[in-house]
Amino acid sequence: MDSNKYLPEAVSTLIEELNKLPTIGRKSAQRLAFYLLRQSPNDLDQLAGSVLGIKDNVKFCSRCFNLTSAQSDENDLCKICNSQARNQNSICVVEEVLDLIALENTMEVSGVYHVLHGALSPLDGVGPSNLKLAELFNRVKEGADSIDEIILATSTNSEGEATALYIYENLKNSGVKISRIASGLPIGGDLDYADEGTLRRALKGRVGF
Amino acid sequence: MDSNKYLPEAVSTLIEELNKLPTIGRKSAQRLAFYLLRQSPNDLDQLAGSVLGIKDNVKFCSRCFNLTSAQSDENDLCKICNSQARNQNSICVVEEVLDLIALENTMEVSGVYHVLHGALSPLDGVGPSNLKLAELFNRVKEGADSIDEIILATSTNSEGEATALYIYENLKNSGVKISRIASGLPIGGDLDYADEGTLRRALKGRVGF
Repeated sequence: MDSNKYLPEAVSTLIEELNKLPTIGRKSAQRLAFYLLRQSPNDLDQLAGSVLGIKDNVKFCSRCFNLTSAQSDENDLCKICNSQARNQNSICVVEEVLDLIALENTMEVSGVYHVLHGALSPLDGVGPSNLKLAELFNRVKEGADSIDEIILATSTNSEGEATALYIYENLKNSGVKISRIASGLPIGGDLDYADEGTLRRALKGRVGF
Repeated sequence: MDSNKYLPEAVSTLIEELNKLPTIGRKSAQRLAFYLLRQSPNDLDQLAGSVLGIKDNVKFCSRCFNLTSAQSDENDLCKICNSQARNQNSICVVEEVLDLIALENTMEVSGVYHVLHGALSPLDGVGPSNLKLAELFNRVKEGADSIDEIILATSTNSEGEATALYIYENLKNSGVKISRIASGLPIGGDLDYADEGTLRRALKGRVGF
């Protein structure tokens, strides 16, 4: 069903490019393309410019691997690593930059981060060398005297749990306190809808009232 | 919750631009942006190029208002209006170019099209002058001697029905045969799941076995 043969080449090329994006199927790509056909040349310039804009203007923080502007004048560090207001001795380890953003929105993290850029997943061919793990271990080793705490905030799925365990095994002798974010019933959660694993964790991790 | 303040400007600009697209919310825009951050500069060039590609390379067919290449060497007409294989005396009226594509995929339309670019919807401020209706009426008037049939293939929602009725009222004295696509139970449809309106139409429009 090549519906694109009835369309001008520029339109079918656009549909194909949009269709390459994750979660955007053929039908969505068609609808997006027709939406873009109705936009002004100026709007199209802006969209295309923003795609090209990330090409040379973004790099990773040399310490925590968060994203930072390539034109960052100060040094190779991101805003958070550069901030005097943050506790540089508490490191929160996350899988992705999006996780960092989610945690920042809680405004509960006073320390800094370390972004692994993934989680251990042997079935998908993701081993320790594919993540920023060596960089984390070096960072802890070099700062062992000053670092107060490492918070493992990887996901609570099997990959995230395995990654947290791997980090714990490697750092447990470093003398630095290591903690894991709590698992349990989400706020607003109904007890009888929760799965057994979650309930087991919620019971095990119970805290004084 | 401006999660973009933790991101380099180039990334937050990209997220904002993607967020402007229909059906793409903030979360989807973030995920798409992070997907694009992992793509090669070449892939980004292709995507941006395809967006810019529709700027000057696409126009509407001067007869049926289907899309056509601006560089079309022959004339101002689209592939279908230019085709010798199509019956130029049967005009199928549709709301959008996407409807034309859906009908083309059935391979049941031997004639040509007229794309209205919308449907009458007074509540949304869409009146007859906002659609390619005058162009349709002119086209029928000029070709009244040769045109055999006009098939009204607008949607069967209230806007599509109103548009079909409006066209019928304006063309019923033109001497040209006017038909409406059938409404009824969709193929594979369960009778007891169909709404009353659909069942009523299916009964009314029953055909000899």
